[in-house]
Amino acid sequence: MVILKGDERLDYLLAEDLRIIQSPSVFSFSLDAVLLAKFVRVPVHRGSLVDLCSGNGVIPLLLSTRTKGHITGIEIQQRLYDMAVRSFEYNALTDQLAMIHGDIREIPKEIGFSKYDVVTCNPPYFPTPSEEEINKNEHLAIARHEIMCTLEDAVRVSSQLLKQGGKAAFVHRPGRLLDILSLMRKYRLEPKRLQFVYPKEGKEANTILVEGIKDGNPDLKILPPLFVYNKNNEYTQEVSRILYGEK
Amino acid sequence: MVILKGDERLDYLLAEDLRIIQSPSVFSFSLDAVLLAKFVRVPVHRGSLVDLCSGNGVIPLLLSTRTKGHITGIEIQQRLYDMAVRSFEYNALTDQLAMIHGDIREIPKEIGFSKYDVVTCNPPYFPTPSEEEINKNEHLAIARHEIMCTLEDAVRVSSQLLKQGGKAAFVHRPGRLLDILSLMRKYRLEPKRLQFVYPKEGKEANTILVEGIKDGNPDLKILPPLFVYNKNNEYTQEVSRILYGEK
Repeated sequence: MVILKGDERLDYLLAEDLRIIQSPSVFSFSLDAVLLAKFVRVPVHRGSLVDLCSGNGVIPLLLSTRTKGHITGIEIQQRLYDMAVRSFEYNALTDQLAMIHGDIREIPKEIGFSKYDVVTCNPPYFPTPSEEEINKNEHLAIARHEIMCTLEDAVRVSSQLLKQGGKAAFVHRPGRLLDILSLMRKYRLEPKRLQFVYPKEGKEANTILVEGIKDGNPDLKILPPLFVYNKNNEYTQEVSRILYGEK
Repeated sequence: MVILKGDERLDYLLAEDLRIIQSPSVFSFSLDAVLLAKFVRVPVHRGSLVDLCSGNGVIPLLLSTRTKGHITGIEIQQRLYDMAVRSFEYNALTDQLAMIHGDIREIPKEIGFSKYDVVTCNPPYFPTPSEEEINKNEHLAIARHEIMCTLEDAVRVSSQLLKQGGKAAFVHRPGRLLDILSLMRKYRLEPKRLQFVYPKEGKEANTILVEGIKDGNPDLKILPPLFVYNKNNEYTQEVSRILYGEK
């Protein structure tokens, strides 16, 4: 049983035997979140993980298929927090997954400094929205723009939460590559793995995935590129596998 | 007529109708230099270009096929400088190409600040060599290690030479990505185009190409990836075209 509110739907969560509550007018997860949940390296059997700017909880749900560790999602919007909680309940994952309704900037004080193995974050991508954009749809504006969470907030808080040797992984736009790498080094999250996502062959990258290690040594690896669509505008085999499982 | 010294050879310069003096024991140009000479955007009909850490002059020679502008190579090793001068003479390019034997750190005082349209540099990649390495072959040690020219020297001098709006292009190893991007921003060369070179599909990148614009606005584009070899370990079509011309 699940209670759906307004225009919410109970969508299938792709490759996994999971369902997720979404709403077109409030928030639907993106391919970027799925790619981040597959990109980050996680301990398989135990560990404590945190997902910042968690939205409707898509990343905790996906991570639950890759680790037995405990995963806490943080979301500032009550409406999205509530959707995530109901999705976790629907999937009977409340032993492994928890949501906290709060501001990521206050979270380390609440859940503890330097205690976590992995932090993920798919932060808002766009700097400052116009007033019109905010008025049009506050939910989408907060999810997409750096209103409640700047890139620097996301990186700083990730570092505060992580143990030495813990991993932080982010997804963002190529235009912010230098910013995100610089901020990671500034907050002791040495960038170690970087992957570029291209919509198709011959196009510029439109997404970056990056993982850093707290107090790690400088040694950045550029992973093979990921192409989303092939020449026929179908998902490539690689992305198809990520989205729909082994085939 | 060309005078070859010691174990020097007069090699064909790939796609171009040019020859270049090389020596296996002193210096031979690399694929990286060729890729940089093709990657950088140059004015076609005029302009002043400088190539730092120019070695045997391979980049000025290759650039001479893409621009009518004047190109000055800077090389600190007398032996390599001398090879470059003889190559320019052999190809009858001394009107368009010049070599200066000197330390790049002193070059702006000599040839002028803020006067150039394009600066290229394929700098030494490796931080500090052991004494044994230096003793074994001083020529190769200086060409490969940051003995006479650190990455920061290369970026700072490039910026000093360039006009506002001028372009600097570098080639380097992925492990230094964050360093090179940070240094470029520090010295007002805003990174605008970044390309990763992969030895083949499924492998990590082993080379980065980056171009910045002096006092440009932040807006970094990640170009499509470049693969060097195909599955049969032959050059890909794209690299083959760069090396041997249109086919």
